[in-house]
Amino acid sequence: MATETGDPWLMTPGPLTTSLSVKQAMLHDWGSRDTAFIAMTARVRSKLVALVDGGDSHVCVPIQGSGTFAVEAAVATVLPRDGKLLVLVNGAYGHRIAKICTYLGRACEIMETPENTPNDVSALDARLAGDDGITHVAAVHCETTSGILNPLQEIAACVAARGRSLFIDSMSAFGALPLSAADTPFDVMVASSNKCLEGVPGMGFAIFRRDALEQCEGNAHSLSLDLYDQWCGFEATEQWRFTPPTHVLAAFDQALTEHEEEGGVPGRGSRYRENCRVLMDGMRAMGFEPLLSDNLQAPIIVTFHMPADPKFDFETFYGGMSDKGYLLYPGKLTVAPSFRIGCIGRMGVAQIEAALDAIRDTIGKMGVKDCGRAAA
Amino acid sequence: MATETGDPWLMTPGPLTTSLSVKQAMLHDWGSRDTAFIAMTARVRSKLVALVDGGDSHVCVPIQGSGTFAVEAAVATVLPRDGKLLVLVNGAYGHRIAKICTYLGRACEIMETPENTPNDVSALDARLAGDDGITHVAAVHCETTSGILNPLQEIAACVAARGRSLFIDSMSAFGALPLSAADTPFDVMVASSNKCLEGVPGMGFAIFRRDALEQCEGNAHSLSLDLYDQWCGFEATEQWRFTPPTHVLAAFDQALTEHEEEGGVPGRGSRYRENCRVLMDGMRAMGFEPLLSDNLQAPIIVTFHMPADPKFDFETFYGGMSDKGYLLYPGKLTVAPSFRIGCIGRMGVAQIEAALDAIRDTIGKMGVKDCGRAAA
Repeated sequence: MATETGDPWLMTPGPLTTSLSVKQAMLHDWGSRDTAFIAMTARVRSKLVALVDGGDSHVCVPIQGSGTFAVEAAVATVLPRDGKLLVLVNGAYGHRIAKICTYLGRACEIMETPENTPNDVSALDARLAGDDGITHVAAVHCETTSGILNPLQEIAACVAARGRSLFIDSMSAFGALPLSAADTPFDVMVASSNKCLEGVPGMGFAIFRRDALEQCEGNAHSLSLDLYDQWCGFEATEQWRFTPPTHVLAAFDQALTEHEEEGGVPGRGSRYRENCRVLMDGMRAMGFEPLLSDNLQAPIIVTFHMPADPKFDFETFYGGMSDKGYLLYPGKLTVAPSFRIGCIGRMGVAQIEAALDAIRDTIGKMGVKDCGRAAA
Repeated sequence: MATETGDPWLMTPGPLTTSLSVKQAMLHDWGSRDTAFIAMTARVRSKLVALVDGGDSHVCVPIQGSGTFAVEAAVATVLPRDGKLLVLVNGAYGHRIAKICTYLGRACEIMETPENTPNDVSALDARLAGDDGITHVAAVHCETTSGILNPLQEIAACVAARGRSLFIDSMSAFGALPLSAADTPFDVMVASSNKCLEGVPGMGFAIFRRDALEQCEGNAHSLSLDLYDQWCGFEATEQWRFTPPTHVLAAFDQALTEHEEEGGVPGRGSRYRENCRVLMDGMRAMGFEPLLSDNLQAPIIVTFHMPADPKFDFETFYGGMSDKGYLLYPGKLTVAPSFRIGCIGRMGVAQIEAALDAIRDTIGKMGVKDCGRAAA
């Protein structure tokens, strides 16, 4: 089963398979300082604020580059130079936020749980109670290292009760899992165009509480990544300070229309949950073992233990699946050999079932009899 | 006269009008860690090195974002924290490099000439002779503030003779004006996908002298903008560290093929020079006065003095031209009211002549009789 454009299905955490109509939105050239493009930018910014129930109290600041550019820009903009950030870590993306702080030369500590264990809110509360120096807390909504869902609402409530500021990396979850400023207070959240919102890669965005952003002048370490200055540019002229990725924004604008048409976050999330359920059931039926229990699994990307069977070789498996038109994703776990299969992007259960057929066929040809993991 | 896709002609310094085939290259989704995309990245990197006659002594490090992101990343990577940069300034882009250094907290001085005057190489030589503390010099190849061509070869020779490092911002010129490492030695030059190479916006690149880049570990202030680390990623896995703008790179790959087909830098430059000549002749015939004399004018974008005739209103002129399908560009000069017309992108003399007809018609309808500038 091929995609509309004859490309492989991207069963990854992104870039992912987008609709033909999203890609066709890139068949035009836009003047970045012309009225039509200015209107497009304003439309995208306001739709993104609406997705977090932000209203007038929140503003969206898009930024060129990958998700990591948006994360770095938002951390550098929101965290004062004399602030201290506590990062809740259970995977590579939490560690990356701490690495960014090292580059920035700003105080940062981490609170780590294992990769298959959610952030510990009780421990967070105790840590905040015991250290007045911590000004900000960073949390990763869905940590794609494992695919785990972190308890964002509880984290937000704890951080608010302790009077600190919250930074949310919702890169891989935003648009499919609910995130409302009404019940999950934050100073800034970041995500990108090419995950659950199903645009193409090339830009990210931050949504700030306006009152918080107004205090951020002079915090950033970088001209390009200064989201306070970027916001002032939008406020003054509705234009991007520096050349925007015009075609990427046009695709994102179309992607947001298609997100609405699917029923917004509930509709998109419902399709992904069904994709995820069918994927996990089918893989379990073949003997594969997911890393996470169902209650911890976000419907974004699923980590499976590498089978113990010596005939299972991931490169061969990847190549066989690629030949059939499905691109899988290597594992990133530090604790156990694994691989990952994404269930986001422009696909539904028919594609998941076809991918499961392809997996059955591939492991059959490899002569793999037992997909269970090695005994611990 | 409409473009192939019914869009306005973008007579700007970029984003600009691209070919339909370049845009159609974006009608596919790519797995950013899959072999096909890895091969595309390698191909683009190696073609860009070849464009500067770089061979094994130079390496290309692409980066997500706009041209300014690439400039900031390259400055931060190449300039040691205890270095001092002298920026040759005759417009906004030179000033922007100095502003970046302020963000970086690195020593920076400027040597400024008026916006209609090239960088002064004799003065540069004297300054370098008199200040041993200056480790690096930054020059802007074509300063699009005015459209002026700076004497890059002479600057490079002077900087090399004085034993300093050269940073070149060739953003608006690269691909149309020659820039060879063989006769213009530099430590790093930067440009982007969406100027004379006629790709779409969303990425830039730096080409480093390999020996220079090898010394740059630990210089950068930013994880996202650390081109040493980005290069190490390419060296290790041929992959981008962070999600690349896959569709933008696919368009750029096609754009580089079309650049070759046009005869490379000489072919592309020849078409732009002809566009520029026809534009300037036609505008002069209507009485408009270009800012620069022909010997200083790069064939990229032309600045015209705003006509003195009180019936000439730029917003009305812009709107009239926009209605006819041509997007012009406001002026950025600090010294005199002006506007700009670009002659780059996927267009030739037929489009320039049609644009001149549209200008004649528009100023006729506005009742403008005299397109000359106000007496000084």
